Amino acid sequence: MRRFAADRARRAVAASLRGAASRSAAPSPHPPAPRHPAYPVGAAAMAAAMSTAAAGAPPVSLDTINPKVLKCEYAVRGEIVTHAQNLQQELQKNPESLPFDEILYCNIGNPQSLGQQPVTYFREVLSLCDHPALLDKSETHALYSSDAIERAWQIIEKIPGRATGAYSHSQGVKGLRDEIAAGIATRDGFHASGDNIFLTDGASPAVHMMMQLLISSEKDGILCPIPQYPLYSASIALHGGSLVPYFLDEEAGWGLEVDELKKQLEEARSKGITVRALVVINPGNPTGQVLAEENQKKIVEFCKNDGLVLLADEVYQENIYVEDKQFHSFKKIARSLGYTDDDLPLVSFQSVSKGYYGECGKRGGYMEITGFSPEVREQIYKVASINLCSNVSGQILASLVMNPPKAGDESFESFMLERDDILSSLARRAKALEEAFNSLEGITCNKAEGAMYLFPRLHLPQKAIGAAQAAGTAPDAYYAKRLLEATGIVVVPGSGFGQVPGTWHFRCTILPQEDKIPAIISRFKEFHEKFMDEFRD
Amino acid sequence: MRRFAADRARRAVAASLRGAASRSAAPSPHPPAPRHPAYPVGAAAMAAAMSTAAAGAPPVSLDTINPKVLKCEYAVRGEIVTHAQNLQQELQKNPESLPFDEILYCNIGNPQSLGQQPVTYFREVLSLCDHPALLDKSETHALYSSDAIERAWQIIEKIPGRATGAYSHSQGVKGLRDEIAAGIATRDGFHASGDNIFLTDGASPAVHMMMQLLISSEKDGILCPIPQYPLYSASIALHGGSLVPYFLDEEAGWGLEVDELKKQLEEARSKGITVRALVVINPGNPTGQVLAEENQKKIVEFCKNDGLVLLADEVYQENIYVEDKQFHSFKKIARSLGYTDDDLPLVSFQSVSKGYYGECGKRGGYMEITGFSPEVREQIYKVASINLCSNVSGQILASLVMNPPKAGDESFESFMLERDDILSSLARRAKALEEAFNSLEGITCNKAEGAMYLFPRLHLPQKAIGAAQAAGTAPDAYYAKRLLEATGIVVVPGSGFGQVPGTWHFRCTILPQEDKIPAIISRFKEFHEKFMDEFRD
Repeated sequence: MRRFAADRARRAVAASLRGAASRSAAPSPHPPAPRHPAYPVGAAAMAAAMSTAAAGAPPVSLDTINPKVLKCEYAVRGEIVTHAQNLQQELQKNPESLPFDEILYCNIGNPQSLGQQPVTYFREVLSLCDHPALLDKSETHALYSSDAIERAWQIIEKIPGRATGAYSHSQGVKGLRDEIAAGIATRDGFHASGDNIFLTDGASPAVHMMMQLLISSEKDGILCPIPQYPLYSASIALHGGSLVPYFLDEEAGWGLEVDELKKQLEEARSKGITVRALVVINPGNPTGQVLAEENQKKIVEFCKNDGLVLLADEVYQENIYVEDKQFHSFKKIARSLGYTDDDLPLVSFQSVSKGYYGECGKRGGYMEITGFSPEVREQIYKVASINLCSNVSGQILASLVMNPPKAGDESFESFMLERDDILSSLARRAKALEEAFNSLEGITCNKAEGAMYLFPRLHLPQKAIGAAQAAGTAPDAYYAKRLLEATGIVVVPGSGFGQVPGTWHFRCTILPQEDKIPAIISRFKEFHEKFMDEFRD
Repeated sequence: MRRFAADRARRAVAASLRGAASRSAAPSPHPPAPRHPAYPVGAAAMAAAMSTAAAGAPPVSLDTINPKVLKCEYAVRGEIVTHAQNLQQELQKNPESLPFDEILYCNIGNPQSLGQQPVTYFREVLSLCDHPALLDKSETHALYSSDAIERAWQIIEKIPGRATGAYSHSQGVKGLRDEIAAGIATRDGFHASGDNIFLTDGASPAVHMMMQLLISSEKDGILCPIPQYPLYSASIALHGGSLVPYFLDEEAGWGLEVDELKKQLEEARSKGITVRALVVINPGNPTGQVLAEENQKKIVEFCKNDGLVLLADEVYQENIYVEDKQFHSFKKIARSLGYTDDDLPLVSFQSVSKGYYGECGKRGGYMEITGFSPEVREQIYKVASINLCSNVSGQILASLVMNPPKAGDESFESFMLERDDILSSLARRAKALEEAFNSLEGITCNKAEGAMYLFPRLHLPQKAIGAAQAAGTAPDAYYAKRLLEATGIVVVPGSGFGQVPGTWHFRCTILPQEDKIPAIISRFKEFHEKFMDEFRD
């Protein structure tokens, strides 16, 4: 072999690496070089390439990076949070420097950061799976409940070679996926299959995977609620698609009207957008509404009739705080309408970060995909396999939250106590905050039927709007900044989620621990009243 | 408020969600509707949108998904592995049906799947951090070493609110990043900062993040070694860039020649490609070579002079098997040349999946980024924040592998024993397999100086090439399939990594446990000799 092969041969390998040629490459030992290499050739590009090197410009700048990255926004950890982190550092250096003694992060659904304790049983099992050598030791029984030990054994046996430190199957450990499917079947009363589960590091990577699959260009549209969780707008921007907004009806408790979906779909189509999918967040984020069954049926029919993939964000399925509402998965609704796997492509996202467990740091989650052809599923699998697998502790936790202890298990009673404590406290906190907001001049707030947020509307005086304008920010961002600086409370301006233009909101989690809620409410009230006094028209 | 705002207002919100307008939106309560909505309008797109809905075509098909997804390939978990999984199922159903009794997965660097045991100390600490309630109990001392308990305490104290179940800072827990930076500084003898560390779920998401940042279109090129780890080709394809290949010199022990880099860079530039970055994998994957310090210096100078980002895949930094080679990080090399943060953008990828730890299932890893402007770093941070954070157990493990027990710690001796056992056994396995391959007719194999792989070259008889052609596959894929079917050994054909056209290789890990190596070698030899007998020209 010559030290380096001829250039033409190299171009061939370059072309084959760019394309899919290697999959079924013709086995010629000396493939001819392509006559036109696959590189795009253009005078402008060439000039650009030359100038970068020649002018000694920095190799990476805002002018040269991917504009899709520049474009995307993620308000939940945006400007206001950076400002809060700076204030926190100030507070650490000089505790007397600010009119409050702690920063209260109500910007993000991160329960354990605000003091929620992890569910003991789940952590026992995780701890044992991390150090399986303990399972054989008698001393272990002094520290762990016996059903947690038993469950850890069962899990370890499901993992090939008992190797919790190995990459799993790219969809996740088969035995854990089967267990999740069993949990889904129990929840819904309809069959579920572990083959349809893709375990992921939280729900976010699953959403990205679907956006990556569905979006080829800005001509591909995704119907998204407004207001929406900004992961969706960010992911659509990163993948270069078009967000097709549909508006939730604030006056109807953030209702989702199918007429509005139809109208927006038609409007998008008339502009040459191929709408690929509908995102529904139920229970809603940031809006907290829980969809009624009848409403969900209409949504399923809409997707079926209009050939849309239904992307169902169901991560708050355990977070329901009102007696008259119940969570129904979209798969259950579709199956109850008689639709099978052949009728409707449907993806359900679930996460270990929410519910009563709130295990955000574990990055566990899954998507259940049904109604996709085998060829398309193979493509989804391929993309999953490029990242090898999601973290196995997160996989284990996902299987636990979908199959918690059962009546009769040693841990059942203490588990239920922890669970119900958290959920009932969240319900009380949601109510207390909602009532507090509604008691104030210039704020109206829908009930949080579910999820972890309130999304109050600010009816701001014109003078406040003018002050924001003078400060060069949106009025809700101005309000949130003033609130932070006066009270240490961090909320996210509504503009980060989208809102009907000319209306202003903020998102506030219901997650501060219950004993802090009265103080938060009074700090908030005091700020708000002063703010209104300052700006009342 | 009217139930729905006017359409023009909605279009405005849609436009603002697509763009960055919300960041500093002018706070007009009634923004004018854009005269030309941002949707692309075109007769072809409109016809396409209409036809999808009208013709009742399936909502998602290979014709409608993102062609970049279709294009990308990932051989390490590709066709041959699917075939192996099917054979494994066959074997479970009917153990006598095949000429072997187990499938040996030598396709992937997944040590614990082949029996490597996790390092006890690391698992003790992880187990304690998963269930911090144990830290207060006296019984815990019966099960865990006292320095693991002490370390778990230290780690828990570094996590704000001791909340291992909370989302961390989007770059990872600050205290853990600082600890990693301290480990890097000890390794290199040069300063490192926790502010430059981004903790990630394994190294793969970090690679994707950088590709996403650097690639805007096919006019952006990334210099990659051939052969390469196919994460790179897949990630470049997914992000729509151009892979600019440079060839490692097999006859010089897979040497990396800077002249070759220069030539390929110039060739790409002459075709209008703006080359953004150079990927170097050191120690090499799939090739196993360890770069010499002098060579690394030239590579750094090349990047500096030509304005390229240096993307250094250093995940095998602990896997060195020869006396005369040593790992030097590219950052150390750059600093030793006197280059500072201002001179050269440099990214180092590290993972908990490799080394002697091999904790693939934990999905821990980080990238250390230096030499980027604050504005660009902010963009990287924004993208990280969209996914909230990497899994905290993986973060903890990354901090442990960069700061293992020290002399004097209770666990130090047993830790060193476990570590050295694994590394010296890997060295012996690499040597035994290399010698076995080189002893065979028609195989030549470079030494594995490091990493976890051998990449032997197959000098196949024309008759074998013809047989592959008749079967419609590449000769090395044909060989790998025959090998699997005869022996149960899974290797990855060289075409999945790229190779000089007309040459054929396969990648084989050195990971089967040592007591199995002799049997594997004899199974392999027997197959290969028969194969050569069948096809000898």
